[in-house]
Amino acid sequence: MNNFPRISFNKCGFEEANIVIFGAPFDGTTTFRPGTRFGPQAIRNDFYGIESYSPLLNKDLEDFKLYDAGDLVLPFGNTKNALNMIKEQVSDILNKGKFPFLLGGEHLVSLPAIESIYAKYENLRIIHLDAHTDLRDDYLGEKYSHSTVMRRVWDLVGDEKIYQFGIRSGTKEEFSWSELGHTYINKYDLYGIDTVIEQIKKYPIYITIDLDVLDPSLFPGTGTPEAGGISYKELEKLFTSISQLNVVGADIVELSPHFDASGVSTAVACKVIREMILSI
Amino acid sequence: MNNFPRISFNKCGFEEANIVIFGAPFDGTTTFRPGTRFGPQAIRNDFYGIESYSPLLNKDLEDFKLYDAGDLVLPFGNTKNALNMIKEQVSDILNKGKFPFLLGGEHLVSLPAIESIYAKYENLRIIHLDAHTDLRDDYLGEKYSHSTVMRRVWDLVGDEKIYQFGIRSGTKEEFSWSELGHTYINKYDLYGIDTVIEQIKKYPIYITIDLDVLDPSLFPGTGTPEAGGISYKELEKLFTSISQLNVVGADIVELSPHFDASGVSTAVACKVIREMILSI
Amino acid sequence: MNNFPRISFNKCGFEEANIVIFGAPFDGTTTFRPGTRFGPQAIRNDFYGIESYSPLLNKDLEDFKLYDAGDLVLPFGNTKNALNMIKEQVSDILNKGKFPFLLGGEHLVSLPAIESIYAKYENLRIIHLDAHTDLRDDYLGEKYSHSTVMRRVWDLVGDEKIYQFGIRSGTKEEFSWSELGHTYINKYDLYGIDTVIEQIKKYPIYITIDLDVLDPSLFPGTGTPEAGGISYKELEKLFTSISQLNVVGADIVELSPHFDASGVSTAVACKVIREMILSI
Amino acid sequence: MNNFPRISFNKCGFEEANIVIFGAPFDGTTTFRPGTRFGPQAIRNDFYGIESYSPLLNKDLEDFKLYDAGDLVLPFGNTKNALNMIKEQVSDILNKGKFPFLLGGEHLVSLPAIESIYAKYENLRIIHLDAHTDLRDDYLGEKYSHSTVMRRVWDLVGDEKIYQFGIRSGTKEEFSWSELGHTYINKYDLYGIDTVIEQIKKYPIYITIDLDVLDPSLFPGTGTPEAGGISYKELEKLFTSISQLNVVGADIVELSPHFDASGVSTAVACKVIREMILSI
Amino acid sequence: MNNFPRISFNKCGFEEANIVIFGAPFDGTTTFRPGTRFGPQAIRNDFYGIESYSPLLNKDLEDFKLYDAGDLVLPFGNTKNALNMIKEQVSDILNKGKFPFLLGGEHLVSLPAIESIYAKYENLRIIHLDAHTDLRDDYLGEKYSHSTVMRRVWDLVGDEKIYQFGIRSGTKEEFSWSELGHTYINKYDLYGIDTVIEQIKKYPIYITIDLDVLDPSLFPGTGTPEAGGISYKELEKLFTSISQLNVVGADIVELSPHFDASGVSTAVACKVIREMILSI
Amino acid sequence: MNNFPRISFNKCGFEEANIVIFGAPFDGTTTFRPGTRFGPQAIRNDFYGIESYSPLLNKDLEDFKLYDAGDLVLPFGNTKNALNMIKEQVSDILNKGKFPFLLGGEHLVSLPAIESIYAKYENLRIIHLDAHTDLRDDYLGEKYSHSTVMRRVWDLVGDEKIYQFGIRSGTKEEFSWSELGHTYINKYDLYGIDTVIEQIKKYPIYITIDLDVLDPSLFPGTGTPEAGGISYKELEKLFTSISQLNVVGADIVELSPHFDASGVSTAVACKVIREMILSI
Repeated sequence: MNNFPRISFNKCGFEEANIVIFGAPFDGTTTFRPGTRFGPQAIRNDFYGIESYSPLLNKDLEDFKLYDAGDLVLPFGNTKNALNMIKEQVSDILNKGKFPFLLGGEHLVSLPAIESIYAKYENLRIIHLDAHTDLRDDYLGEKYSHSTVMRRVWDLVGDEKIYQFGIRSGTKEEFSWSELGHTYINKYDLYGIDTVIEQIKKYPIYITIDLDVLDPSLFPGTGTPEAGGISYKELEKLFTSISQLNVVGADIVELSPHFDASGVSTAVACKVIREMILSI
Repeated sequence: MNNFPRISFNKCGFEEANIVIFGAPFDGTTTFRPGTRFGPQAIRNDFYGIESYSPLLNKDLEDFKLYDAGDLVLPFGNTKNALNMIKEQVSDILNKGKFPFLLGGEHLVSLPAIESIYAKYENLRIIHLDAHTDLRDDYLGEKYSHSTVMRRVWDLVGDEKIYQFGIRSGTKEEFSWSELGHTYINKYDLYGIDTVIEQIKKYPIYITIDLDVLDPSLFPGTGTPEAGGISYKELEKLFTSISQLNVVGADIVELSPHFDASGVSTAVACKVIREMILSI
Repeated sequence: MNNFPRISFNKCGFEEANIVIFGAPFDGTTTFRPGTRFGPQAIRNDFYGIESYSPLLNKDLEDFKLYDAGDLVLPFGNTKNALNMIKEQVSDILNKGKFPFLLGGEHLVSLPAIESIYAKYENLRIIHLDAHTDLRDDYLGEKYSHSTVMRRVWDLVGDEKIYQFGIRSGTKEEFSWSELGHTYINKYDLYGIDTVIEQIKKYPIYITIDLDVLDPSLFPGTGTPEAGGISYKELEKLFTSISQLNVVGADIVELSPHFDASGVSTAVACKVIREMILSI
Repeated sequence: MNNFPRISFNKCGFEEANIVIFGAPFDGTTTFRPGTRFGPQAIRNDFYGIESYSPLLNKDLEDFKLYDAGDLVLPFGNTKNALNMIKEQVSDILNKGKFPFLLGGEHLVSLPAIESIYAKYENLRIIHLDAHTDLRDDYLGEKYSHSTVMRRVWDLVGDEKIYQFGIRSGTKEEFSWSELGHTYINKYDLYGIDTVIEQIKKYPIYITIDLDVLDPSLFPGTGTPEAGGISYKELEKLFTSISQLNVVGADIVELSPHFDASGVSTAVACKVIREMILSI
Repeated sequence: MNNFPRISFNKCGFEEANIVIFGAPFDGTTTFRPGTRFGPQAIRNDFYGIESYSPLLNKDLEDFKLYDAGDLVLPFGNTKNALNMIKEQVSDILNKGKFPFLLGGEHLVSLPAIESIYAKYENLRIIHLDAHTDLRDDYLGEKYSHSTVMRRVWDLVGDEKIYQFGIRSGTKEEFSWSELGHTYINKYDLYGIDTVIEQIKKYPIYITIDLDVLDPSLFPGTGTPEAGGISYKELEKLFTSISQLNVVGADIVELSPHFDASGVSTAVACKVIREMILSI
Repeated sequence: MNNFPRISFNKCGFEEANIVIFGAPFDGTTTFRPGTRFGPQAIRNDFYGIESYSPLLNKDLEDFKLYDAGDLVLPFGNTKNALNMIKEQVSDILNKGKFPFLLGGEHLVSLPAIESIYAKYENLRIIHLDAHTDLRDDYLGEKYSHSTVMRRVWDLVGDEKIYQFGIRSGTKEEFSWSELGHTYINKYDLYGIDTVIEQIKKYPIYITIDLDVLDPSLFPGTGTPEAGGISYKELEKLFTSISQLNVVGADIVELSPHFDASGVSTAVACKVIREMILSI
């Protein structure tokens, strides 16, 4: 009697695992087009369609101790409770000495993950890839929103800890506020990321990738596509550089499968996840 | 110099109007497939594509004093504030002596509308068309949800005031609770609605139509389609009966345009709105 | 060396054929959602997917002498020229003693076909299935439009020659004008079609089926879907009655494949075409 | 540390289960539009979106001992091997004294399931709901095809064992062959199913439901939609009658999610599966 | 009582405005895939989803005096009348001393706009971005077509006034005719546009952007996508150069939302419109 | 009486033709997302939408002697028979002294084509553009699969005859096996293709283009999209180089139209076919 589990992330049991993946299917503050809650499901459906081996990195997922804890069941309509549940899950993973790898959901899910990780690593630095600044102080009066998430992270970690790349959209106020020294913004692309990596390689690092940093030609399946993004080949340079870093947590957010009629965005998300896991 | 407004609901200015339409594009508690926030926009886009005249009712929208107040701008991620804004809007319309006609959004938007109306009409009775009971006391711990909305209405108006038709999905507990005499449920269809209309025609009436009461063959564009629903012709019988009632408020909810690839669901919603306006 | 033609309508060469099918891929006056120009192509693509045998009629297309003349190449932006080309094509088919079977395109393409046929058969009667009256005298000032087509046919054939079934949408003026005795309208369904068939069976008949006469639950793939239409089983009754009639020409119009994501509308159109051919 | 499995069919472990569900994601002989291989995945994704309780049957899935064994991994391009793997899986389930419930995939997957069951129950009778006869002796020379599956079943079980309902498409030869007494065909609907149930209730029964038996208005998501099908309410009558039967195996086949843009077909499939499980 | 207009282009009333936007939803001569008539509607629906601030240009739409006059209501099937209505609208805007900014629709809508502007500015030069030459003298005998529009413009303005960039499709005759000195064509990209800008900066300029000049990877939502197009970053260079020019009118044409399943093309169109407005 | 054939490839009759195109609509071994069987149909539907003239090559299809033999009718579920029918068709074309140009279908259809051609040209060299190695020795035990096709070609032609470009996905074993000298692999792009062309220009050449070699941003409509592919402009360099080669056969495979909602992938396939024909 065979049982054929579909979740191909699972390479071992939880106890044995080094890396624990879980989904945070939350899109409760999305203002424009919701649907990132279906991101983790879409990724699991299609993950078995890609190879486990990366020619770029010459590594194979089959050699990794990976465990997929499934998706959190989050209460819609109650942002606070949802964030608390994510925070607790990340703390549990950290307490067991394992690496948390979070699949969004909207970008706000990064906040509770970073809160848990910052509680353990006080020197934490954050690499943030995104099309959008996400530095608003509030959005229509709300403090907790996918548009404010990096501002809330800054509330926590303070100045000169957040390195933002690929940014090409935001309000005038957000860009001005950042320029006061609060965060490092590299507009449009990943130019200068090697210098940054050199600077921060002695610190523990959290990497948060909002997939809309990619050009919408390659990654249409997201809520707020923004022309002028980075190419996949630029992202590959990041993957080959990450090995120098002490990465202690990561997330991949903002895949919205309903806007991915062809399935290419989901395939790209799966490949980015594979390369990220193989790099860290 | 001509200006061509696209919003064809608008037949006069606000002051002159008898009926005020507005959109409540909220889907913050939707648990399965969000997207009803785009309902009012889709309705406005396509409304000009239908005739203003109804052969069924032999009436014409052009003869009505109708005003479209546009969509509320609601904060996502904060259910309480969103509901308060809707409540206030309905109170404003009522205070000016006009009829409020609400376009959802998810079903929870009916709650604040009914709260405002109940404050004015204490003998209010509610006609509720839906595939789902919506009588849970909470959903994953949340009191305010599209699955609990009629239970919250019951908290307000009490036993034997809510008449539910077309219901074909719910938990065992919801059906049992209703059978204790809390609400009147007619399963599957509109059978018996004429008797009910006879009974309640002396009271002020609020009509809330969750469009998923229609069979998903005709109305696929909704979050939780449920086979075995009513036909459009059954709904036409309701339209011809409504004129006997003292209707004081109404809503049409749960159109989710992203699941309406053909546009038929939106066309149906437009026609239901036209017939509802012509009937009241 | 084999050649595998995809056009499965073709059962013989033109000379041998009794029935000649051709496509009129015109949608130049469509006011709401264009795309019926792709109707004939979609029908040909999918026609080989259906059986040639009809259990309802116990007949098989393989036993018919059928020829597919392909699609006319029509000039977009010049309605008059397009209509003239269709008229000429129908005249050519009639002159060779064959039966013209036209695939639309929007409903206006029926006008030139009927003009050609009326020139040959002065006692012509018309059976018209449609959701819409199509009796406007003009549309935004234009005399030739898919909304005016039956009015233009009336200009030609006069009072009491046009029998309209399934009608459920139009302006008040159109219904009133018809009631003056100009056309026979049976609203909503095919009720009474047997009586009509009895009355007109001695005359030559043209049948024009606007597929939007079907309920949009079954036939979403059309420009202006209208709830409350007839079922496929009602149409089957027509197919079994047609054999009593002296049908001299026919068309099937208003399939718009871009609104047919599932392909069901195209499959329905193919089946209607098969049953029509087997009936006449 | 919580693990949140998404497969909500699973109500217990395999050993404890009475009913074992598994997916056979095979569509290798589909001639027109492939894609039923994605049926089981789509069903699992959406199954958690429906209620476990059935108002029709007044039963709840939570009270059943159900186990989901996942999907078989089948070799594409080798029909024989794929069928053997399915046959073996069903035999394993039967040998453990459990009820096999198969999710297709195309209709050919029923053949190996019936072979295994027939080996155990020699008096087996088969109830077959479908739009198509599936009685061809071969298709383009191939003996094993979704168009020949019931003919191959007949090779096994012989005359007067197969009861076909809802049939509305096939070749003239298939209907003629059936009329020689080989199978019982009830065209178009389920009329007479109660009489059949009365006749065969003493025998072990296999039920195979090709979901295209439903009208394509409700169930567009299938490879070869055929107008004129049964309504969901007709199917409900079957569910309420099944309890009289000694059902020993069942399958639900031919959901093709890529033709289900709205998700309604998948929701219908989930509901049919729930009602089937609650009935047997 | 609040009214929430959805048209976020509107920054002031008409009288106060410097720039007047209007939609010309015409696609009557489109030969292949129609649907650009829905372009202006799609743009208005999604425009509120983008930021008003441009990091590239460091300017904000909120600082502009912009008025949205809505969409013209054009007669389908009568190309001449439709073009006249557009011409009149542009003349009205010019007569009030304002800048006309036209949203198509198909490319033919540029012709009447240019006619009005040329009547005022006899030294007019035209910058034309497109994948296609649009220089046919007629198309299937029609003089007025989206394939002939720049030839008709040349009839008006004569040799060496039209500068075409990004061109990668046309007939051999069109390219040969251009090479006789009639128009300046830069194939494939915007190479050399700075030199051209230098040459013509003393003249009044009309800019017409057929969005299919962009590579279809980024801009699939158009009727005739053509591989090998320019990137968004190339277009950004144009935006930064425009400020040197005396632009007196502009249009953005050929967004066809039905071929934009992901919404990226519409988002790109919105961003191009924002950058164009901020540049002129 | 005019007949308007839609198949615009056809420039002459078979006897007169130099190049014979045919479709092999087979996807029977596709493991992930099937649908390439609809590739040839989609190409024929849209081919008339592109220009016959290539500005890049300054050649026009109208000047070529081209014949379209239509699509083979292949038995689904029997891989061996399908491959034999393709092999026979290519042999027939070769025996008549004509150039075979094959439209897939999945990549396995290249194998029988190459078998026929190799029987005639023993010094055959193969240029293979693809995202995937296709060098597995078997896939789930099957020797004949779209994942093994180039390995089977190697069985036939041996070492140093196969030149693979654009490869960016495969197992570790496939890359290692190739590096033993069995095939030449250029990862990611077409770099070095000119050197290869120089080396092999004295031999007869077969070119097989799996369209997924293109980046999925431009070519989403394929079964297994793989980020990091080549741009259309890189492919244009190949077209301009091909004229130096003695090409004796070619194929274009893996267009899957159901994943091409916008139609861009089909348009790209049509353009690649045009440029390939004009180059050889």
